[in-house]
Amino acid sequence: MSDPFVVVGGDAAGLSAASKCKREAPEREVIVFEKGQWVSYAHCGMPYYVKGEVESLNDLLSLSPEGIADRGIDLRRGHEVVGVDPAARTVTVESGNGRSEQPYGDLLIATGAHAVSDPIDGADLAGAFTVHSMDAAAALRAFLTPPGAADPDAVDGEAVDRELVAAYAERDPPASAAIVGGGYVGVEMAEAFSAHDLDVHLFQRPERLLPPFGEAPAERVAETLRDHGVTLHLDTEVERLAGEDTVEAVVGDGERIPVDTAVVGIGIRPNTALLDGTGIELGHSGAIATDEYGRTSRENVYAAGDCAEMRHAVTGESDWVPLGLTANRAGRAVGQTVAGTPTPVGDIAGTAVVKAFEMECGRTGILDHERARDVGFDPVSETITAGSRSGYYPGGAETTVTLTADRGTGRLLGGSIAGEDRAAIRIDTLATALDGDATVGELERLDLAYAPPFSPVWDPVLVAAKVLNGRLEN
Amino acid sequence: MSDPFVVVGGDAAGLSAASKCKREAPEREVIVFEKGQWVSYAHCGMPYYVKGEVESLNDLLSLSPEGIADRGIDLRRGHEVVGVDPAARTVTVESGNGRSEQPYGDLLIATGAHAVSDPIDGADLAGAFTVHSMDAAAALRAFLTPPGAADPDAVDGEAVDRELVAAYAERDPPASAAIVGGGYVGVEMAEAFSAHDLDVHLFQRPERLLPPFGEAPAERVAETLRDHGVTLHLDTEVERLAGEDTVEAVVGDGERIPVDTAVVGIGIRPNTALLDGTGIELGHSGAIATDEYGRTSRENVYAAGDCAEMRHAVTGESDWVPLGLTANRAGRAVGQTVAGTPTPVGDIAGTAVVKAFEMECGRTGILDHERARDVGFDPVSETITAGSRSGYYPGGAETTVTLTADRGTGRLLGGSIAGEDRAAIRIDTLATALDGDATVGELERLDLAYAPPFSPVWDPVLVAAKVLNGRLEN
Repeated sequence: MSDPFVVVGGDAAGLSAASKCKREAPEREVIVFEKGQWVSYAHCGMPYYVKGEVESLNDLLSLSPEGIADRGIDLRRGHEVVGVDPAARTVTVESGNGRSEQPYGDLLIATGAHAVSDPIDGADLAGAFTVHSMDAAAALRAFLTPPGAADPDAVDGEAVDRELVAAYAERDPPASAAIVGGGYVGVEMAEAFSAHDLDVHLFQRPERLLPPFGEAPAERVAETLRDHGVTLHLDTEVERLAGEDTVEAVVGDGERIPVDTAVVGIGIRPNTALLDGTGIELGHSGAIATDEYGRTSRENVYAAGDCAEMRHAVTGESDWVPLGLTANRAGRAVGQTVAGTPTPVGDIAGTAVVKAFEMECGRTGILDHERARDVGFDPVSETITAGSRSGYYPGGAETTVTLTADRGTGRLLGGSIAGEDRAAIRIDTLATALDGDATVGELERLDLAYAPPFSPVWDPVLVAAKVLNGRLEN
Repeated sequence: MSDPFVVVGGDAAGLSAASKCKREAPEREVIVFEKGQWVSYAHCGMPYYVKGEVESLNDLLSLSPEGIADRGIDLRRGHEVVGVDPAARTVTVESGNGRSEQPYGDLLIATGAHAVSDPIDGADLAGAFTVHSMDAAAALRAFLTPPGAADPDAVDGEAVDRELVAAYAERDPPASAAIVGGGYVGVEMAEAFSAHDLDVHLFQRPERLLPPFGEAPAERVAETLRDHGVTLHLDTEVERLAGEDTVEAVVGDGERIPVDTAVVGIGIRPNTALLDGTGIELGHSGAIATDEYGRTSRENVYAAGDCAEMRHAVTGESDWVPLGLTANRAGRAVGQTVAGTPTPVGDIAGTAVVKAFEMECGRTGILDHERARDVGFDPVSETITAGSRSGYYPGGAETTVTLTADRGTGRLLGGSIAGEDRAAIRIDTLATALDGDATVGELERLDLAYAPPFSPVWDPVLVAAKVLNGRLEN
């Protein structure tokens, strides 16, 4: 009887699990099925590859297929898992060699997520991209690079779709770009397109950029983007991308703005179609429901990464916050668990950071008042702006901090930070406080770092805690 | 009968207390006695003033005497409190107008600390300084500035000792400098002297710089100082500064090294002589013993700032860690308490950060194994070095993290961080975790920030937690 640890999906969660299991239990057979050719690549780095700040595709790979093999992992690319039978403990796999059954002892679903673009008509035109695959990133960079200026080493990925890249390399580079969606990808792509001197239009359906970050960071990012010449179209619904074969314009809210290329970054959805009919339950978000060890509702079946929900540190409820650290951490924990040492995947706090040109933003926990009330809190927030260094020390920058707490208990629920001087990394202080169920009073009395080059006596985080705590006490 | 809140000492703790009390209880009389002329000045900024990075003395003042008066505080400079009678609730004050008694309702001792230099013979020679007073900082900067290049605005402090400054301004600027002591002041002054192109010799009696930071940051700072041409004399005891009237050489360990100026930064001691015979108890460190509200052993007498002990977040015991935030926070809490709202001063974790040229270091909690064993822990430490950003993203730097934990419980006891890219501020994550009594396992599972420009998927703090936790589990 075969007892392999079978992993579906060769990216962050899947390969973290496979690697950890092999390290802890070297004798166990570990098989990873990946339907595509790319494995272990850094989604978060793609905008910087498109920008040109990251030189080559290979730089974005954490592990090569050879490195994975060296770990003793049986990686099978071009193998798509099309069925799961939890009762028989088998998966059905399709590859160039046809269809086969693979028994498993433990199974990890690490199928990730896919970028949504279908609400936007025309997203399949040439010149339109979602920056969610290595091939798309390679094609877009080739498109942006003037003929003759292309760096042959930039497209060094062994798995890359060379035909697609070559087709874009032959086109005239775009002079203008539309970005549909003002989330992480949208904001980062604005920076990337600007680096190529494009005229950039960013369209966002909500009134604000980066909705999970709340009002204050959104305003600071909007100001920064405008300062860099990006035209913001907020509160604007894009109906379609127009053009014959190639994107020629963005159409929305009665306007038609000519552009030469477009990126659609309006969200991602978990890849769960594989689980239809398996009895593996999904959570309210549509991602796979898991417990504190990453277990699904079926025995010996785990889920981790962008396809799975996890428990939220503040609400205690399951939530879907698909981010890189979460995938790596949960994958690693599952690998350790199936190797024989049950290991919790940890909670998520929704901690996220983003860079928009020189502006840095971070957020963690629950900032949205409606969401806070939904889970039984009575939220109250304060926003302050304070210097990042002692006033007399050069190089400081105004740092905006928002804190949200529960009025009755004083418990910190969430926070955001925006500024240009070491602002984003300060969010870790709040993420750590959330994990320890700190109150705002406790936050106010934290013994944080002070030295003129790094922080004023009262760090902006402490200033915000003082102000919010003052309000809670009255 | 008079019920004023009387404060002894017009610096961070004293004026924080006075200001907070006046804000919360505007009708209460608040009197601050300051024996000198300087009030509310930033000790931590002095090395940067000497360096020339901070332009003027006035930049180092948080509040002007006029600003203090505007708050309704009765500030009396040139008034030294020479006696305290807790039974009679009076203090004895000496000023240019002679001696008088001042009744108090509440009393705050905020007398600060003084720099120690007397173990070094010759520390009273001209050209030798302790960088612990505004006048000394002004004189040293004047000394370092070539005649004719002096910025008249640099010595704009209303209280400055102009005679002293003028005398140093007339001297030939030094070409070489000795720094006696490799703590904060020593390291910061090495940077300051180097900025004036001096040949710098730093003498440190212990084997390592910055002893509270532990081995790894000390080594990285030593390497950085050497890279900038500073000659380190570690494990070297300075016997004396030699010279006729003026410093001409440093003598120690059988060597005589000629230098033109010297800074002695070998430590500070709390100013407590005033309390002899008052029954106000001192703690084991020699600083004033206080409880969680900053109360001393005598009724209605508080102590805060560099003259007072506070409770340590990790050991639960009283400790003396004289730092800026502690003084401000404790002073503010005492001001609120005497205004009618009892407010804890908070614990200290010994969080400190320091900059040495481009190297940033932070430390918090208990790192020293002997100290940890003294308070009943079984310490175990790990040190790792990891990148500060995703490997493919430009601008990252090697970041060294040391974590110490208790073997039995896994509780985090302390940590240090050193590196050149946003390293120091990351110590706040550890300070916050300490305050929440986090274990290393909990630290490992924190949902910290990840984005390529700011952090790799596994932040160096998480990498260290993984490694230490792996050791604790085996």
